[in-house]
Amino acid sequence: MDCALVVVGAGPGGFDAALEAAALGIETVLVERENLGGTCLNWGCIPTKLFLGASAPLASLADHAKLKLIEYDPESVRVSLPALQNRKRKLIAGTHKAMTQRLKKAGVTLVQGSGRFTAPGVLEVEDAEGGVTSIQYKDAIVATGAGSASFPAIAPDGDAVLDPQQILDLETPPESLVIVGGGAIGIEMGEVFSRLGASITLVEAMDHLLPYEDTEIGGGLAKLLKRDKWALRIGERVASLKTMDGRAVLTMESGETIEADKALVAVGRKPNSAGIGLEAVGCELDSRGFVKTDENLNAAKNIYAVGDVNGIALLAHAATHQGHYVVRRIAGREEQPYAGGVIPACVYGSHEVMRAGLTEAMAVEAGGTVEVSRFQLAANPYAQAQSAGYGFVKAIWINGTLAGISALGHGVSHLVTLAEVLVREKITVDRLDRYVFAHPTLDEGLAEALRAPREAVS
Amino acid sequence: MDCALVVVGAGPGGFDAALEAAALGIETVLVERENLGGTCLNWGCIPTKLFLGASAPLASLADHAKLKLIEYDPESVRVSLPALQNRKRKLIAGTHKAMTQRLKKAGVTLVQGSGRFTAPGVLEVEDAEGGVTSIQYKDAIVATGAGSASFPAIAPDGDAVLDPQQILDLETPPESLVIVGGGAIGIEMGEVFSRLGASITLVEAMDHLLPYEDTEIGGGLAKLLKRDKWALRIGERVASLKTMDGRAVLTMESGETIEADKALVAVGRKPNSAGIGLEAVGCELDSRGFVKTDENLNAAKNIYAVGDVNGIALLAHAATHQGHYVVRRIAGREEQPYAGGVIPACVYGSHEVMRAGLTEAMAVEAGGTVEVSRFQLAANPYAQAQSAGYGFVKAIWINGTLAGISALGHGVSHLVTLAEVLVREKITVDRLDRYVFAHPTLDEGLAEALRAPREAVS
Repeated sequence: MDCALVVVGAGPGGFDAALEAAALGIETVLVERENLGGTCLNWGCIPTKLFLGASAPLASLADHAKLKLIEYDPESVRVSLPALQNRKRKLIAGTHKAMTQRLKKAGVTLVQGSGRFTAPGVLEVEDAEGGVTSIQYKDAIVATGAGSASFPAIAPDGDAVLDPQQILDLETPPESLVIVGGGAIGIEMGEVFSRLGASITLVEAMDHLLPYEDTEIGGGLAKLLKRDKWALRIGERVASLKTMDGRAVLTMESGETIEADKALVAVGRKPNSAGIGLEAVGCELDSRGFVKTDENLNAAKNIYAVGDVNGIALLAHAATHQGHYVVRRIAGREEQPYAGGVIPACVYGSHEVMRAGLTEAMAVEAGGTVEVSRFQLAANPYAQAQSAGYGFVKAIWINGTLAGISALGHGVSHLVTLAEVLVREKITVDRLDRYVFAHPTLDEGLAEALRAPREAVS
Repeated sequence: MDCALVVVGAGPGGFDAALEAAALGIETVLVERENLGGTCLNWGCIPTKLFLGASAPLASLADHAKLKLIEYDPESVRVSLPALQNRKRKLIAGTHKAMTQRLKKAGVTLVQGSGRFTAPGVLEVEDAEGGVTSIQYKDAIVATGAGSASFPAIAPDGDAVLDPQQILDLETPPESLVIVGGGAIGIEMGEVFSRLGASITLVEAMDHLLPYEDTEIGGGLAKLLKRDKWALRIGERVASLKTMDGRAVLTMESGETIEADKALVAVGRKPNSAGIGLEAVGCELDSRGFVKTDENLNAAKNIYAVGDVNGIALLAHAATHQGHYVVRRIAGREEQPYAGGVIPACVYGSHEVMRAGLTEAMAVEAGGTVEVSRFQLAANPYAQAQSAGYGFVKAIWINGTLAGISALGHGVSHLVTLAEVLVREKITVDRLDRYVFAHPTLDEGLAEALRAPREAVS
């Protein structure tokens, strides 16, 4: 089989790149070993958001009941996890169908199987029955994504110790859940099962939750989760985690043990870069296994790597953005180096987190005079009306120029793209009035944070 | 009392203008006859959003129950309207206190009473006890806002026939409510009381709900409300509405009568421009009573009018934006005519509406080649995860340039400021990739609508 472009991996990076390439008239073959949509659709963002969405009314009822605005019996309101699993499967199947149709309509050839580069210009795809298709290509995009990382002492076994993919398949909610890892996945899955009635213990080895986010955000989130009765073990290390007599038994380095019905290991992601013949076409991997790319996302001659597998930003929308760039480049429509710039990031749930641009620590690392300004969402009328007047928006300035905005609070994921635009534009307070921030909205909190007095960071 | 600037009215226009003026070193007196915050805080947006916020879990439970994701007994979950009224009073009182402190800190003098211009440069303020304070000013800003409009045949009596302010004070939810007027206030209050168990009948004389919005938006909303069991009488006219034996009795022009526990009259707003001596200082009113202003928001020599009272855009954030402009002008920092540009607008609730820029009809009226492009939110993963995969985003193009974005759907008010930015920037599809639309978010729906195929409007 000959083609101009072969794309390996049909997650957000590869799928969108294939469609874009076909739209530009490039003869494209898309290779996928498992499901269209990759981790995001099948075992990541989408099912997690569905679980968070369906369980959100429970959290919202509890919040309003605390203020006595709503009266109800918590025992009488239940999320049906089997119904949710059913809906998840239907939703994903429906999306697979729609994606297949889009590929067909666009004229992209889909080849199911595991791709492996055997020589420059040749990718061999082995299907489930062992049949092999050889694809001769001019350009290739590697978009194979990443999977869950773990360590031998805490390796998920699929019994009581689960990885993020396995926990999304539970049909019965655990009564207790211990989570190793305080990143986005641990926080979001903890919130789902907390709402479904589980007592949550979360262990994070770093000194704050969400280690990639602002310490103030991580600290603020920890307070909120403690209020929600989570047991947090921050800055503590796990020695081992295994299933014993059907239950998860976690042993801390201190020797203390914590037992729970189930455990979730969410300690990061590792690239899917092995076994696909990257060495045969001259690609190099870094010490963690990510594919090295140059400023044009080139991994080797005529080979590009986009998305999680290149390690630049492990987010679905970053993969899509990179994929679009590479296709423009292959089509001769792009001569500039790849500029990801300000990539927005969110953590979803009752207490959300969003960031666009730098954290305070990143800004200090970058150098220059760093200042911060803050706005407390307690003073935001929209947040008050949601009975969610807590959290804050924090702006980071370097030498007087806006360099980042982070926020913690109910619904702040809705702010992320607007925040990104403001940071990309390096908006100044003098120019804020060129936009009208609708009232009452959370958006006003962004403007207030930018207008607030700045304080120097030592 | 002498001052450089007197501001009459402490709603969003006047209050923010007074603070901004004080920040620029202008000696400012703020005059308010009733409560700080105006209609928006006391009898408008804020209490309505609080009522919508507190009742939202009921709607959300029902949505998820339809999909069998949540099981509950609807009878066992109740919003306490007395508790809500209590919280409303506390929230507003707390905001009054915070606003008073902000004025004090900024050095703005607050004078309570009804202001009346008696001659150029002189405003007399009469307090509740009849005492009069005479204020000599150099510049004045009229920001007296607007009140509820009605007609003699349907005049609210405060018994069973209520205006939008009176209905916000109910301590017991009606079992049936008839609403005259299908604008934002009618829709939002109808939603509140529908959630609280009332059967809703809504009469709108124009040919679609939300007459200022896109017909497609109004039509789509009508379908959703019918699904929610509202009785809609669109394109029909009311002959009379009055309280009889304690109940509201509405008679249609056809002679048909509709009875309900309560009725809400929400047929528009009328400016608070009478009795404040505007004629004494040379201001003119238009036929509906709005203060006429020039391109600099000047209503007469040294007199500016901002907010609802000038009739330009009856929205809190438009008032604030105009107030800031006028203060910059008075301070000698602004020489350009006022450019409101794209003013965002929302209708809140379970099925929200937002608009930034022109509707299709406005674009056709403006002339040029008009095209529209649409994206159905059923295909937006975030909307799907909220069990709210319905509604759409519609983009309007004139001669190939983006001129407006409207949306209907769950949570679309969160899109409004970002949509405004895209319309103000006249973003092109080629340049969309300069931003990264976070995944999964509703924001992606904006990008999808802009990328969708365009169809010409006849």
